[in-house]
Amino acid sequence: MEHGAPALLTVGVLGGMGPAATVDFLGKIVGATPASCDQDHVPAVVWSRPQIPDRSRAILAGDDGPLAPLLDGLGVLERAGADFIAMPCNSAHHWHARLQGRTRAPILHIADAAAAAVSARALGPVGLLSTRGTIAAGIYQARLSKAAGIILPDEPTQALADAAIAAVKAGRCGRSALEAAAGRMLERGAGSVLLACTELPIAAGRSRFADRCIDPTLALAQACVAMSYGGRLTRTGAGTRA
Amino acid sequence: MEHGAPALLTVGVLGGMGPAATVDFLGKIVGATPASCDQDHVPAVVWSRPQIPDRSRAILAGDDGPLAPLLDGLGVLERAGADFIAMPCNSAHHWHARLQGRTRAPILHIADAAAAAVSARALGPVGLLSTRGTIAAGIYQARLSKAAGIILPDEPTQALADAAIAAVKAGRCGRSALEAAAGRMLERGAGSVLLACTELPIAAGRSRFADRCIDPTLALAQACVAMSYGGRLTRTGAGTRA
Repeated sequence: MEHGAPALLTVGVLGGMGPAATVDFLGKIVGATPASCDQDHVPAVVWSRPQIPDRSRAILAGDDGPLAPLLDGLGVLERAGADFIAMPCNSAHHWHARLQGRTRAPILHIADAAAAAVSARALGPVGLLSTRGTIAAGIYQARLSKAAGIILPDEPTQALADAAIAAVKAGRCGRSALEAAAGRMLERGAGSVLLACTELPIAAGRSRFADRCIDPTLALAQACVAMSYGGRLTRTGAGTRA
Repeated sequence: MEHGAPALLTVGVLGGMGPAATVDFLGKIVGATPASCDQDHVPAVVWSRPQIPDRSRAILAGDDGPLAPLLDGLGVLERAGADFIAMPCNSAHHWHARLQGRTRAPILHIADAAAAAVSARALGPVGLLSTRGTIAAGIYQARLSKAAGIILPDEPTQALADAAIAAVKAGRCGRSALEAAAGRMLERGAGSVLLACTELPIAAGRSRFADRCIDPTLALAQACVAMSYGGRLTRTGAGTRA
């Protein structure tokens, strides 16, 4: 029984990693939607489970602990009517292929969305700020290499990124650490800085480097709006959209 | 199959009415949580369906159109593991009793949460700004009357509130209309202004009247955090918590 099923496709959000990042992502979907009233907005189901084990630590330890709860969440979202899936957590994309293998619903990839945004900017090499796990898993390197050269963080820069991420997860600001990390990347020749952990755009906020940063969370949100609206025109079953 | 079920109770959010208000509510839950890392945060499942028919119009027309999709959403949230429910939409509480009658999961009532916040402020009569439907349905009047006297809006004030609400739903600011409405309430002797439509706290933002306003969305978010954390200590089955 389904009353008033929307013409727009429903996004399923595997979230809570962290919870503030999920809220930021949902807000960016709302902001990216060409709406004049409630009913124009993208329908969503969200599974926000902050208790999923730390993704970066799991990647570095060669541990697939986060995969089982992510699969649970994927099942919840499918049963709740999600037509396609998005994960506002960069590190969790380490398990993207295995999650995609378990569902017919397309799972948008945050690095594909970000690579499109990087291509559109064309500002020279891009400095990658993320968790250590995202870098170790190579989530961005191959996908970005066609769009731009990549500068990886040195150890002091990574430590600053870690501090900014931890601050946001604990409800603090993180901006000074993020600015210091971004500044080091720009000094090393980055034309722009990719904020490839979903806590980092929150830390960036009104940073003085905001116009030099590229936000994969926003890129993924824009891709979700396009998918939801595009599906309205060409709705032929989720399994046909890859 | 459930991996790593959290010790905290899971809030189910009947949302999308409107979508920006749901994001605001989720952000207030995150902000109200005493967390030092992801895993301390409140687990949530969110059903955001902006296509639910306009609640205020339905109340004024004596039409129960929103009830069927709300019941659909309630079922989705129960199957997704929600231990208790919250609706970040004041007008939708017109159907609170009928929704509560269909689930063992407690549905927190936004006006109960707001009444507690009003009692704590004790600033004299409270000016009620909301949709016309919320006032016609009497969602606040009985619950607030023990906490404070109530000043209802006159027609020009209601028209300003309507304009502020519509602006936020269309992705605009709404602050000037909200400030004008709140100013009229304060001139008429209100000690504080209750922003009893979930779009209104968004419009209030950094308004010059912000310190005179009481935000039921925030009060409901705080009640959800207390419920999620309190349930951790006394978890005995959702049906025993009213």
